[in-house]
Amino acid sequence: MLLEGSWASQLDDRAIGEDIFALAAEIYPICRSITGDGVRETLRRLARHVEIIMHEVPTGTEVFDWTIPREWNIRDAYIKNARGEKVIDFANSNLHVMSYSVPVHRHMSASELKAHIYTLPEQPDLIPYRTSYYAENWGFCMTHRQFTALHDETYEVLIDSTLEEGSLTYGEYLHEGETEDEFLFSAHVCHPSLADDNCSGLALLSHLAKRLSKVKTRLSYRFLWAPGTIGAITWLARNEERARNIRHGLVMSCVGDGGGPMYKKSRRGTALIDRAMSHVFKQHWPDGVIQEFSPYGYDERQYCSPGFNLPVGLFQRSQFGTFPEYHTSADNLDFINAENLASSYRTISAVIDIVENNRCFRNTQPKCEPQLGKRGLYTAIGGDKDAPKKSMALLWVLNLSDGSHSLLDIAERADMSFAVIQDAARLLEERGLLVAAGRKAAQDPAG
Amino acid sequence: MLLEGSWASQLDDRAIGEDIFALAAEIYPICRSITGDGVRETLRRLARHVEIIMHEVPTGTEVFDWTIPREWNIRDAYIKNARGEKVIDFANSNLHVMSYSVPVHRHMSASELKAHIYTLPEQPDLIPYRTSYYAENWGFCMTHRQFTALHDETYEVLIDSTLEEGSLTYGEYLHEGETEDEFLFSAHVCHPSLADDNCSGLALLSHLAKRLSKVKTRLSYRFLWAPGTIGAITWLARNEERARNIRHGLVMSCVGDGGGPMYKKSRRGTALIDRAMSHVFKQHWPDGVIQEFSPYGYDERQYCSPGFNLPVGLFQRSQFGTFPEYHTSADNLDFINAENLASSYRTISAVIDIVENNRCFRNTQPKCEPQLGKRGLYTAIGGDKDAPKKSMALLWVLNLSDGSHSLLDIAERADMSFAVIQDAARLLEERGLLVAAGRKAAQDPAG
Amino acid sequence: MLLEGSWASQLDDRAIGEDIFALAAEIYPICRSITGDGVRETLRRLARHVEIIMHEVPTGTEVFDWTIPREWNIRDAYIKNARGEKVIDFANSNLHVMSYSVPVHRHMSASELKAHIYTLPEQPDLIPYRTSYYAENWGFCMTHRQFTALHDETYEVLIDSTLEEGSLTYGEYLHEGETEDEFLFSAHVCHPSLADDNCSGLALLSHLAKRLSKVKTRLSYRFLWAPGTIGAITWLARNEERARNIRHGLVMSCVGDGGGPMYKKSRRGTALIDRAMSHVFKQHWPDGVIQEFSPYGYDERQYCSPGFNLPVGLFQRSQFGTFPEYHTSADNLDFINAENLASSYRTISAVIDIVENNRCFRNTQPKCEPQLGKRGLYTAIGGDKDAPKKSMALLWVLNLSDGSHSLLDIAERADMSFAVIQDAARLLEERGLLVAAGRKAAQDPAG
Repeated sequence: MLLEGSWASQLDDRAIGEDIFALAAEIYPICRSITGDGVRETLRRLARHVEIIMHEVPTGTEVFDWTIPREWNIRDAYIKNARGEKVIDFANSNLHVMSYSVPVHRHMSASELKAHIYTLPEQPDLIPYRTSYYAENWGFCMTHRQFTALHDETYEVLIDSTLEEGSLTYGEYLHEGETEDEFLFSAHVCHPSLADDNCSGLALLSHLAKRLSKVKTRLSYRFLWAPGTIGAITWLARNEERARNIRHGLVMSCVGDGGGPMYKKSRRGTALIDRAMSHVFKQHWPDGVIQEFSPYGYDERQYCSPGFNLPVGLFQRSQFGTFPEYHTSADNLDFINAENLASSYRTISAVIDIVENNRCFRNTQPKCEPQLGKRGLYTAIGGDKDAPKKSMALLWVLNLSDGSHSLLDIAERADMSFAVIQDAARLLEERGLLVAAGRKAAQDPAG
Repeated sequence: MLLEGSWASQLDDRAIGEDIFALAAEIYPICRSITGDGVRETLRRLARHVEIIMHEVPTGTEVFDWTIPREWNIRDAYIKNARGEKVIDFANSNLHVMSYSVPVHRHMSASELKAHIYTLPEQPDLIPYRTSYYAENWGFCMTHRQFTALHDETYEVLIDSTLEEGSLTYGEYLHEGETEDEFLFSAHVCHPSLADDNCSGLALLSHLAKRLSKVKTRLSYRFLWAPGTIGAITWLARNEERARNIRHGLVMSCVGDGGGPMYKKSRRGTALIDRAMSHVFKQHWPDGVIQEFSPYGYDERQYCSPGFNLPVGLFQRSQFGTFPEYHTSADNLDFINAENLASSYRTISAVIDIVENNRCFRNTQPKCEPQLGKRGLYTAIGGDKDAPKKSMALLWVLNLSDGSHSLLDIAERADMSFAVIQDAARLLEERGLLVAAGRKAAQDPAG
Repeated sequence: MLLEGSWASQLDDRAIGEDIFALAAEIYPICRSITGDGVRETLRRLARHVEIIMHEVPTGTEVFDWTIPREWNIRDAYIKNARGEKVIDFANSNLHVMSYSVPVHRHMSASELKAHIYTLPEQPDLIPYRTSYYAENWGFCMTHRQFTALHDETYEVLIDSTLEEGSLTYGEYLHEGETEDEFLFSAHVCHPSLADDNCSGLALLSHLAKRLSKVKTRLSYRFLWAPGTIGAITWLARNEERARNIRHGLVMSCVGDGGGPMYKKSRRGTALIDRAMSHVFKQHWPDGVIQEFSPYGYDERQYCSPGFNLPVGLFQRSQFGTFPEYHTSADNLDFINAENLASSYRTISAVIDIVENNRCFRNTQPKCEPQLGKRGLYTAIGGDKDAPKKSMALLWVLNLSDGSHSLLDIAERADMSFAVIQDAARLLEERGLLVAAGRKAAQDPAG
């Protein structure tokens, strides 16, 4: 068992939130893309907290319908005006260069240059984030104010990048539990200086992995820090059989802002992860929104493709594409904070509590109610204001523990938190009124 | 396949609406009943557009629990006052005579006459529509103003009708498709000059049959223009085995007014026709009302009797019995128009598109998403404002095409129109990303 | 069959309500507890109306996880002040003594006494009802005004009770029907002078049993008047096999006040009793509230324990614990009345009509509609304002009587009262259009 009590309830919120924020801040400046040294450097920083294995997959490797692209790296980039002043400098923001831009170093007219510039006219102070992974191109992203300040003169344009044979890099950590059944956590590592999307998720998963590495668990926990789309596809192509062990999964991104939360269900829709997330939202975060699966989003798209159909959902605070800071320079370290990261962490912890501890029991005195008083059970639950709730939890667990209702089934039907139902079950098991009846009904079948 | 593109979207609404209206107007003056020359004359007019076969079933023939009644015909009818003036003249409106009135020609007092007169006191300018098929009787229908204008004098009353051995007449047209699976359309032909109920349905089905007669279809399409109740019963009694081929069916009446639309589900409730109609309403006509089955209405009562339980629903604009013009002289040619008829026609066409084309596909690259860009699929869907929707349609079709989801399943889950999903499937099939996986799951089983 | 017509509709509401009220009033003054002469005296009064068998189960008998406690009886109790005046007198209200108080007769200080006094500070004129069955203790209950009037003086305290070897008493009546399938009615007999909770239920069941004793029924009807919790457990322990015959059951309490009504479903949730109660509420008492099962309440807790899981629900007017009079001296004869008791009785009668008469029929003319007119069915349902409803009932019964829909299924789908549907079925059976198709689908399987 993972923990004697409920893990979620034991968290020191402030400390964990600050740890995650610090790590997110540390990796925020690094220029990442779907390949390259930025990813490696990021993973090295994360690996100081947990023993992440870095995998390198060579350019040209076929992964299902895709091929690992050439590796992209960038040293410098700028636009200089006729007076030799840098009007745009990569050193100021790695968003200034469109990801996967091919190298360029030329003088060109403003009009030629402008055909390669991307701005956000309606958010004139923000730099957009743009990529061109699969079409050879180069480009600069800048604020619309910078764009309108360009004159009709000749500019020196430099993108000192390389696009060469190399490899795609991803990080992986496996915490082995009592069983081979796995819980997968996955975060994309390919975005440059965007704090919420997804320094937040990368850092949160690192600290979650760190904590799990120190405890005994029933499930095994697999963590992936991989480039979006191509990274998840690569892992699935290299681990096709292993993927069948995944019983629960969460893709995590944008977990540091103050919006949401939202959970998008897996393609299955009624997987245990779907029910557990719904339960945690309902009991602890009623503002949370549960969405049905759709095939657009982050890497749940790959995990939920029909050939895998894994029970993997998406957890976010603000949903991608719906907030003004999304994919702009406003998604910076001011947009996330320790408190939000801590509440995201706590939510995931509560879900782990459920999937670790959900199981079926059998009431040893199933005919009529057992006499609770003579077993000291009324005393055991105390006389405080929570006593009536705890007493109801005892009755619910006794009534439904017929071997076919899991603790989550009971929590749902009783409309009580899993932790309270689990506490009641523990107490009843101690007093001999419950015996384990297997996990069968409490688990998702293999995919 | 019926059509390469979506049929509904190719309609010239104005032209088809005007054609249907013209035909409805042509048959409007004819005095119809459940038997007689009016039905024959009506079918002859309809048969100018499509090769309708006229069936004659002799009086006395037993059809399940019923018997074909004597044939009724009428030449003239009037009420003359003491001065020999016609105060009521059948030539002015065939609603003036209660259908199946036995012949009468006598002088009688106003009080004796009044016992045979039907009016609508709350709609004093309208003539009601009345019948007495199975109880021998005679009667006149008139406006309440005409009724109150009758004096205490002797009237000459004439109904020059015959009720004799003869036959019941119904029309039938079968368009043979690739399979013996049938889509049944049925409209009642027994009402006299009532435009919406049901000249509208008779004319619409004629033009629908005409159009279908010119194209290749997968399903076979059977059209019935038959007297209400006894006509449908007669057809079922004579075609008991053939009826088992009916996979989808619609009874149509009152399809030319501006109300509704409404669809009443078949007794099965979840037949493909029920889902298809619900889908079309939701996507294209959100004001439409879907009703649960009930055993009162038009001939769906017979098709959905427990011994047949066919997947046949009812499509109407305004629902029978709920509008003030219903079964009165106000249900005239002013109450229907070409535009309404065209939108009813378009709705049915959209449903035909669904049942013709609904099937299951299998994604040939089911493991992770295929790379759409390298196949030119982003280009294929264009860059217009519909591109995001079309792109989502591609993702939905790829994600759910596991051999067990039909295109309608996908359209329902994606909350997108069937046509958009079908276009996406066609594109993916062309690019080799989809292969047909049979129709099994996409069809209703035999009844 | 229980009754030719609907029983519920034949009730003389006023008379039955007054009979039940009179019996409730007669037993109201008796001091009852979970054992003792009060229970016996109560059952003797009830037994004047129907032949109740009184069972005595000795102290110390083990019943599942419980043991029959010692028998408690009380003759007198008072608190006298220093002047010898009785400030509290058991003769005024048997609520003054906490049930199962051990004997005491001493002079004591006001402060020592006060540790044994229970009041309701927020309802200062009401005496609370308290018990201490399984922890040896004694106590007085009084109004808060009486409590605050106590002075700092020495009081003489008497509780002349006995707690000795004896027995637990419960009453039982079985009306044998054509089958061994049983309908269980159960009411708790352990509360002292509380009129609604549960003199109302005890009296109602007595009159219900009396009426059933005089008619032939299909089901057998078992009535239990037993102490709460321990009484139901005792009966189940002594009748474990017999309990498997229980097909439907209702626990009844608080059936005389003007609140509610409410029905709490059995643990099964979709048992016939659950559907029948829901149907009766929806059709006849739309203010009624249907609650999902929960394992707290009255003796449905025992009947619905997982080792039995019987289809037994709870019927109440005001729900326990939710009204200010609950478990106080305000739950007196003014709180209940004949009219409320009669409407509770009528509700139960309507449910009995359903479970007695629910069955499946088969339409003998299933292909198309039979011709109702030639069988005189339109005449049979009359021409009054209910004729359209009765006509619809005929159509619904004919349409759904395919051998797999019970009359309750039909009533639910048609949204018509069971009585109307049953009348239609009777008429159709008489005319040869229906034949019985067994009860299988209309019944709950054994537990």
